[in-house]
Amino acid sequence: MKLKRRAFIAGASAAGAAALAGCAARGEEEAARAEPTVPAVVDFDGAHQAGIVTRTQAALYLAGYNLRSRVDAPGFARLLRLLTADARALCAGEAPLGSLEPEMSRNPAALTVTCGIGERAFDIAAPEKKPAWLRDLPAFRRDQLDPAWGQTDVVLQICSDDPLTAAWALRHLTRAAADYATTAWVQQGFSQASGEATPRNMFGQVDGTVNPVSEDDYAAQVFADGPAGFAGGSSMVVRRIAMHLDEWELLDRASREQVIGRTLDTGAPLTGGGEFTAPDLRATDRFGLPVIDKNSHMARAMPPADHPEQRFKRRPYNYVLPPEPGSARLSNVGQIFIAYQKDPVAQFVPVQARLDEVDRLNTWITHIGSAVYWVPPGTSASGESEQYWGQSVFGSPRG
Amino acid sequence: MKLKRRAFIAGASAAGAAALAGCAARGEEEAARAEPTVPAVVDFDGAHQAGIVTRTQAALYLAGYNLRSRVDAPGFARLLRLLTADARALCAGEAPLGSLEPEMSRNPAALTVTCGIGERAFDIAAPEKKPAWLRDLPAFRRDQLDPAWGQTDVVLQICSDDPLTAAWALRHLTRAAADYATTAWVQQGFSQASGEATPRNMFGQVDGTVNPVSEDDYAAQVFADGPAGFAGGSSMVVRRIAMHLDEWELLDRASREQVIGRTLDTGAPLTGGGEFTAPDLRATDRFGLPVIDKNSHMARAMPPADHPEQRFKRRPYNYVLPPEPGSARLSNVGQIFIAYQKDPVAQFVPVQARLDEVDRLNTWITHIGSAVYWVPPGTSASGESEQYWGQSVFGSPRG
Repeated sequence: MKLKRRAFIAGASAAGAAALAGCAARGEEEAARAEPTVPAVVDFDGAHQAGIVTRTQAALYLAGYNLRSRVDAPGFARLLRLLTADARALCAGEAPLGSLEPEMSRNPAALTVTCGIGERAFDIAAPEKKPAWLRDLPAFRRDQLDPAWGQTDVVLQICSDDPLTAAWALRHLTRAAADYATTAWVQQGFSQASGEATPRNMFGQVDGTVNPVSEDDYAAQVFADGPAGFAGGSSMVVRRIAMHLDEWELLDRASREQVIGRTLDTGAPLTGGGEFTAPDLRATDRFGLPVIDKNSHMARAMPPADHPEQRFKRRPYNYVLPPEPGSARLSNVGQIFIAYQKDPVAQFVPVQARLDEVDRLNTWITHIGSAVYWVPPGTSASGESEQYWGQSVFGSPRG
Repeated sequence: MKLKRRAFIAGASAAGAAALAGCAARGEEEAARAEPTVPAVVDFDGAHQAGIVTRTQAALYLAGYNLRSRVDAPGFARLLRLLTADARALCAGEAPLGSLEPEMSRNPAALTVTCGIGERAFDIAAPEKKPAWLRDLPAFRRDQLDPAWGQTDVVLQICSDDPLTAAWALRHLTRAAADYATTAWVQQGFSQASGEATPRNMFGQVDGTVNPVSEDDYAAQVFADGPAGFAGGSSMVVRRIAMHLDEWELLDRASREQVIGRTLDTGAPLTGGGEFTAPDLRATDRFGLPVIDKNSHMARAMPPADHPEQRFKRRPYNYVLPPEPGSARLSNVGQIFIAYQKDPVAQFVPVQARLDEVDRLNTWITHIGSAVYWVPPGTSASGESEQYWGQSVFGSPRG
C-alpha cells in the first residue's frame, strides 16, 4: 500500500522509461526518423491507479460509456479485462494486442488511463458489493444539470502531455470497448503544458493549491483502507462547471481576488505569504474589516476545524468550446472538475453543499454536469498474472 | 524580404526569449512560484507573419470571425490595428494594453497568431485591391460542405505549445474584436507535442513530408513577390476534412500503405528509403506491377513535371470530437487542413481538383468545410511606429 516516492515526485518511473527505450529500439530501420518524444512513462500498475497522484498532464479526454443492454456480469468483467490490458500497453508505449497502429502508442508522454465504475454497472454485475456512497450526488440548489453530462456506467480519465497520444488512447479504448459499451459523452479538457506548478483555470486563478501532497495526505484523504478488493481504491466525482467569463471579466482585479480570497498573481491568500501559506481568516484591515471575506470561495471551501476529513484531491481541467451559434456571448468555457476522495458523501458533498449555500464565486459559475464513480484499486502484473481493474469485485472465482 | 535563418531553425528568437525573461523578472515577488514555462518566443514582427514557416505547435484554435454590419473601411482598419497590437503583445509574453490578466500571457510557449482576411472584408474596405484569386474555391465534385465551416471575413490561426496559452489568446482576441466582429466558428485542433518531426494524423500517417524547407522553397511557393503592400504576404486555404476512421481501420496495414503510397512507420515512399527520399513512380515489383499505385494519394498529389508550381506549405492539425449523440459511429475525427501558397488558384486548386477526380484515399475522407483568405505580409515595430496587419492595403493615407 505504500506509494513509491518517485511516483510522487516525477510521475514517471525509470523502469518505465527503460521499457519505452526498449520499445523504440525495436525498429532499427526507423532510427532516421526523429519521432517527437516526451519520454515519460507513468507506471500503470501499483497499489493505486495512475492518474490520481500523477501531476496534471496537458491533455484530457474524460470519456463516459454506457453498457449495451445485453452485457451481464461476465460480460462486464470481460470489458474490464480488455480495457485494462489495452490501457496497460498504451501507457507503456506498446501496441495493444491486435493493434495495427504501433506508431500511435510509441510516445506515451506520461499517458495515464484511470477507470471509474458507475452505480448501474454495480447493479448489473455485483449489486451486493456496491459502496454505500455510490449513488447520485444530492441535488444542490444552484445546479442546472444537463443530462447530456450525467452519470454513466464507466468512465475513463485519459491524460497525456501529448494531445495526439491522448486522442489515440481515446480512439483505441473506445473501439476496444465497442462490443460492450457505447460513448455517452466525451469531455475534452486541457491544463498547462509542463505542469510542475499548480495550473490556472480560465478565470486566471491558480487552482488546486490545497491538494494533498504527502503519502500520508493521500492515505488520509484519497485511498480507501478496505475492505479487501476496495483497499487502495478511491472515488471520482466529476462536475462540469460552466464559467461565465464574459461577466467575470467585468470585475476589476481587486474584486476578482476578493471573490476567491487569493491573489491572482501567485495564488497566495489575501493575508499574505506565498501560494502555500495558510490563510488568516481572522485578520482585519485598518478599517477593522476582514481581509479575507468569509463568503469568499476559499473561506467557504475550507474544512471547518471539527471536520478535517472534508478534503480531497482536485484534478481540474479547463474546457473551451465555441460560443453557441447565434449567442451574444463571447465565451463558452469552464472546468471539468474531477475530485478523488475515499468517500464523496463524507468529503465532497459537505464542501459542495456549503459552497452551494453561499460562495461569492457562485455568481460566475454554474454546475451543468455531475457523475460519481467507484475507482478500483491499482493492479499488478507480475509474471504471467495480469490483474484487471476491479477484478476482485467483478471477477468470477475462477478469475 | 530575407527570412532570418534562426526563425527557420528554431521557430524562436534569442531576442524574443530575452524579452520574455525581462517580462518575467518584473514581478520579483512571484519568484517563489515556479510558473510552468516553455520559454520560447516566436518573433511576431518580420517580413512574413509568424505561424507559416513556424513548426507546428501542439495546440490550435482557428477562429473565423464575421464583421458586424455597421463596420466600414475605417472600422475594419481599427479592428486590424487593435488585433495586431494585442497579438504582438501576447506573442511576446506581455499583457495587451488594458488586460487585467497578465498571468495568462506570461508563457507564450511559441505562441503565434496569423491573420487572414476574407473576400467580403475586401469588398467592404478595399474592393479595388482584392486579389484576383480571393474568391470561393471552385466546387469539387466530392465536397459535402457544411456552411457552418464556411467562409468568414477574418480568420486568426492561434497556435501554441501550451493549450492554456492558446485558449487565452483566443479569448483575449475574441473579446478585443467584439465591437467589430462576431465568432462564426472555432476549429480546435492539435498536433504532436515537441513537434520537431513531421506530425502524424489520425490515420497514423506522417503528414506534411513534402513541405517547403529552405528560404528558396518558401520564396518560390509561399510568399508573394508583389505588388507593394502584398509582397511578403500569402494566402491561406482552410479545408475541414472528416476522416472516416471506423472504415479506415477495416483495412490491413498493407492496404493502408497502398492507399497513401507511403509506409506507415516512417512515411517513406513504398519504393524505399526514408521519409524524405523521392518516390520512384515507375518502379515495378516482381510481377511487373507498380510498387506505388498511380491512384495513391501521394502519386495524385504530386505536381506533374510541367507544373512545378503546384506545391504549397501544409500546416495540418487534427480534430477529435465526440461521436454524434445516437450515432452508431465510434469516431468523429478529421483534419483541419491549412495550406499557405502564393496563389491558391494556381497552386492548391489544381492539386485538389486532381485528388477530387481520383484518389484512393477519397473512400475514407470527405471535405466538409472550405474557406480562403489573403494573408497580409509581416509587420514591423521599430521605434514608435508599430505596423498593423494589412496596413498598406486597408490603412488610410494618414495611417
